[in-house]
Amino acid sequence: MRKPKIVVLGAGYGGLMTVTRLQKQLGSTDAEIVLVNKNDYHYETTWLHEASAGTLSPDQVRYDISSVIDRSKVDFVQDTAVKVELETKKVILEKGDELSYDYLVVALGGAPETFGIKGLDKYAFSITNVNTARQIREHIEYQFATYKVDKKPERLTIVVGGAGFTGMEFLGELGNQIPRWCKEYDIDKEMVKVVCVEAAPTALPGFDPELVQYATALLERKNVEFRIGTAIKEATPEGIVVAKGEDDTEEIKAATVVWAAGVRGNPIIVESGIENMRGRVKVEPDLRAPGLSDVFVIGDCSLVINEEINRPYPPTAQIAMQQGELVASNLAKLVQGKTNLDSFTFDNKGTVCSLGDDDAIGVVFGKKVTGTKASFMKKMIDNRALYMIGGIPLTMKKGKFNLLK
Amino acid sequence: MRKPKIVVLGAGYGGLMTVTRLQKQLGSTDAEIVLVNKNDYHYETTWLHEASAGTLSPDQVRYDISSVIDRSKVDFVQDTAVKVELETKKVILEKGDELSYDYLVVALGGAPETFGIKGLDKYAFSITNVNTARQIREHIEYQFATYKVDKKPERLTIVVGGAGFTGMEFLGELGNQIPRWCKEYDIDKEMVKVVCVEAAPTALPGFDPELVQYATALLERKNVEFRIGTAIKEATPEGIVVAKGEDDTEEIKAATVVWAAGVRGNPIIVESGIENMRGRVKVEPDLRAPGLSDVFVIGDCSLVINEEINRPYPPTAQIAMQQGELVASNLAKLVQGKTNLDSFTFDNKGTVCSLGDDDAIGVVFGKKVTGTKASFMKKMIDNRALYMIGGIPLTMKKGKFNLLK
Repeated sequence: MRKPKIVVLGAGYGGLMTVTRLQKQLGSTDAEIVLVNKNDYHYETTWLHEASAGTLSPDQVRYDISSVIDRSKVDFVQDTAVKVELETKKVILEKGDELSYDYLVVALGGAPETFGIKGLDKYAFSITNVNTARQIREHIEYQFATYKVDKKPERLTIVVGGAGFTGMEFLGELGNQIPRWCKEYDIDKEMVKVVCVEAAPTALPGFDPELVQYATALLERKNVEFRIGTAIKEATPEGIVVAKGEDDTEEIKAATVVWAAGVRGNPIIVESGIENMRGRVKVEPDLRAPGLSDVFVIGDCSLVINEEINRPYPPTAQIAMQQGELVASNLAKLVQGKTNLDSFTFDNKGTVCSLGDDDAIGVVFGKKVTGTKASFMKKMIDNRALYMIGGIPLTMKKGKFNLLK
Repeated sequence: MRKPKIVVLGAGYGGLMTVTRLQKQLGSTDAEIVLVNKNDYHYETTWLHEASAGTLSPDQVRYDISSVIDRSKVDFVQDTAVKVELETKKVILEKGDELSYDYLVVALGGAPETFGIKGLDKYAFSITNVNTARQIREHIEYQFATYKVDKKPERLTIVVGGAGFTGMEFLGELGNQIPRWCKEYDIDKEMVKVVCVEAAPTALPGFDPELVQYATALLERKNVEFRIGTAIKEATPEGIVVAKGEDDTEEIKAATVVWAAGVRGNPIIVESGIENMRGRVKVEPDLRAPGLSDVFVIGDCSLVINEEINRPYPPTAQIAMQQGELVASNLAKLVQGKTNLDSFTFDNKGTVCSLGDDDAIGVVFGKKVTGTKASFMKKMIDNRALYMIGGIPLTMKKGKFNLLK
């Protein structure tokens, strides 16, 4: 009898959790497992704001996939999935190969959501992957270096679009990094302007207002200027144009514009004709795509409703990893001929938003935390993600142990 | 009786040598000494190719002026001289101040000579000072980072205009640095192109042909492509256009163009109406400007003829420092009422052109040297310049001691 073939697309939090759990639960005769990923490394999406600000190096935020998978059970294919042919059960890869599957796990990350704002795709940077993160850091440093040559003040202005989770964490790192850059490039700190523009009526919507207040006050002390309730109308080669009052607009000249607001699903979802809302799939309780008994969708491409507030959970590493665990055990059941798949319930252990490596805010197990304690917990959360996928060796190698400040 | 006032413009090799010798030779009651410089630091012009390639940090190629001058004898003014009023014996400074003098030493560095080639001033970088050097390094790194995002091959092409001293030394550093950058940015080394374009019929004109052959072969092994006898016709936003055959041209697409050919005198010479040839002053034997008994000109702005070949000596640190020594002793004589000023004779101790930090070529005390030995001598020359101006403390702090490879 032919072994069933499980294909996992994406080696992010969800995909790697699926594969590492599968390789524990299944023997090498039970199933063929194939992992497809664009790079031969996994990167910590939740640490990219640090690479973007240069507070961590690109190498610190990634690790080799080969270091966590069991090669005797998992085949790794370095390629990019471009389309899923649902009828023929095949994945089309960028380099031209086709990959058939019995079960498919779509664990691909999302794409930046620019909400149709003109020029953002062209003139704004995005904290999307290791390459774009590194580009942001190099871009800012190049602007600082060039300021010393041509003295144009806008070279020292950084606009961050969005005061959500990523935006605030990035601002926290910038707050710590800018004084170091000023020293390195002989620049007066007062010349640097960091402006955060957020269309919503508050920073960190959904967070406890007291914590939001703590975070914005802290970032303001680090010279961040907030423009809350202000919509970006356009990004241009010179900076951005924001709404002002009813009909007016205002230009903010800035050499660096980083768009840190909103994630939509991966284009492959739409391309493959899987039922979706803005590229994300409202999955069944067992995490399968509606109407497809052999396709699971997890992570940024999936949409799970928080029944308490009747809104989707935001896409996070935490939820992706929990989904990966469940998909692995559901796949193990299917391979073993069982049909009683388990339903997914999100167990929210809390959320911590870092504000540089020395401060943070968050809610952990229902309790509000700030300051050093929150920062410590954030690092524990980061280390836990490493531990869940790669055990102690990976945690020792890539973990954050600068815990005492 | 009023103390005579000596104003020295520029804290390069010539200016600092003048001031540090003067402060030894004169007591604080003998003369008032004022040093004017744009920055509060001196930078090693001959090391800038290393900062430009990122093999040395900007901080490694500079030191604080305050660390070598005797504040009880020398006033330091951080400003830029814009004009000398010869009639009224005043220097006009950028910030608006005026500085009167009894004796003036113009020891300002040169400016890049672009020979009227279109677009070079706008689209090419120049290894001129710490700021432009740092900008070049940051620019290349930003291009490498961006290549990983947009995959445009020209981002990995670097054109160096000129195979003279600076050009060849910069190519040597690039040869060593590019493999490191490729590792840092996950780039295949084969994708990077370095093209050196030189209009003259040979690299390093004036150097021994055997040494030139050694240098070009070594750089070619480090993947530098030489286009000797090829003139740059134009620099554009996309790269450069070079002459090809009699009438034809060829475009070389390159995100980075570094112009490393030719130095002309400082614009202040022309601006002040001092007799000059392309901004450089053909000085009298005692290093005074023709017809001016109170103005000395040394370094890049001066022109001293090598009688043997009836051509000017190239502007180097070695000649500037020897000029500084002579000017200091001539000034001491003038202050003491003597009129028998000494004449300048250049004592050429040799020239070494580095090819990365591990190889070099040169002629030292009349002998040809290559390889590790030449590289060692180059570092000794670099350390000697530090020692001559700042003694042992400065040499220990900023010297090059990675002598054994």
